Amino acid sequence: MARKTIWQGGTQLAPVPAVLVGCGNGTDFKYNLITVAWAGIVCSNPPMISVSIRPERYSRGLIESTGEFTVNVPTVSMAEKVDYCGMVSGRNVDKFNAANLTAKPGSKVAAPIVDECPLALECRVVHSLKLGSHIMYVGEIVAVQADSELINAKGKFEIEKADILGYAHGSYYGMGEKAGDFGFSVKKKN
Amino acid sequence: MARKTIWQGGTQLAPVPAVLVGCGNGTDFKYNLITVAWAGIVCSNPPMISVSIRPERYSRGLIESTGEFTVNVPTVSMAEKVDYCGMVSGRNVDKFNAANLTAKPGSKVAAPIVDECPLALECRVVHSLKLGSHIMYVGEIVAVQADSELINAKGKFEIEKADILGYAHGSYYGMGEKAGDFGFSVKKKN
Repeated sequence: MARKTIWQGGTQLAPVPAVLVGCGNGTDFKYNLITVAWAGIVCSNPPMISVSIRPERYSRGLIESTGEFTVNVPTVSMAEKVDYCGMVSGRNVDKFNAANLTAKPGSKVAAPIVDECPLALECRVVHSLKLGSHIMYVGEIVAVQADSELINAKGKFEIEKADILGYAHGSYYGMGEKAGDFGFSVKKKN
Repeated sequence: MARKTIWQGGTQLAPVPAVLVGCGNGTDFKYNLITVAWAGIVCSNPPMISVSIRPERYSRGLIESTGEFTVNVPTVSMAEKVDYCGMVSGRNVDKFNAANLTAKPGSKVAAPIVDECPLALECRVVHSLKLGSHIMYVGEIVAVQADSELINAKGKFEIEKADILGYAHGSYYGMGEKAGDFGFSVKKKN
């Protein structure tokens, strides 16, 4: 048996995503970005994602007013911008401008996608739950935008070429080596 | 502007965790494991996690009957076992036995932790939400068990030494290079 140290509860799940959440609509609610690591897929069909935000954050009002947001998956080369967009408030800073990121309207939502991110998930809020320090928003993913140059001849997004960023225990990390494909444990035995 | 391909909604968030969820209590409800990639942190204080499971899965009844589960973060070397525990049903297979994994009761919950995993989060269900193909369970993380040998002299868990497993777009991956620490974008400028 491995010797274990027992701690009080904490948020040590890893790896988790490190995403730029886009909100606002560019008209009555200006575009904003907020960096979120507290995000996860919560349903396959229809596809749904959870994103958790502190209620005092500026983005909260934008998401609740418009009922829309985007989840933009950044690359390792964007790590400093991703971190920065979690450090400053959209109340004071136009983060798209300050971080030199390009806002484009979604195809199905008015919330902006980040053009520099190889993957963008367009979401409509279907549930929200006040949990404590954070409000969890569950969004249905109504469209996905992917960099065309990363889609191979079979129509598959080449995630390894995308060099996406993740997060674990207070630091940002790239992805490492592939360890197997879904189902490989039983295919091997056939 | 990057050329984008627009798809219908999908679950392309990445990276996401690839965890073994432990359930049952070893007495009236036998221990079971289920592999889950649809998991994420949803609140910092109190610490909470979401785990989504298809309602037809055997683990659903165990989690709903006991109100408890654990989230065990595996290593890259465990990838085949992790995959296997997502491929077979606890209705037919004792997965701890079949995958040669060691069940240990939690410190605060009766659900089993996986001794071979360097991190185990002990959870009590506080919300559940039927979403479509999946039910999302929100658990408060009431304790964490970490391999003592991975905790350094400062009391920090050395995640890079733990070689943990993640998941992205249908494959399992290790973690890559560190790209920065939380807050590095503003520290640099000071």
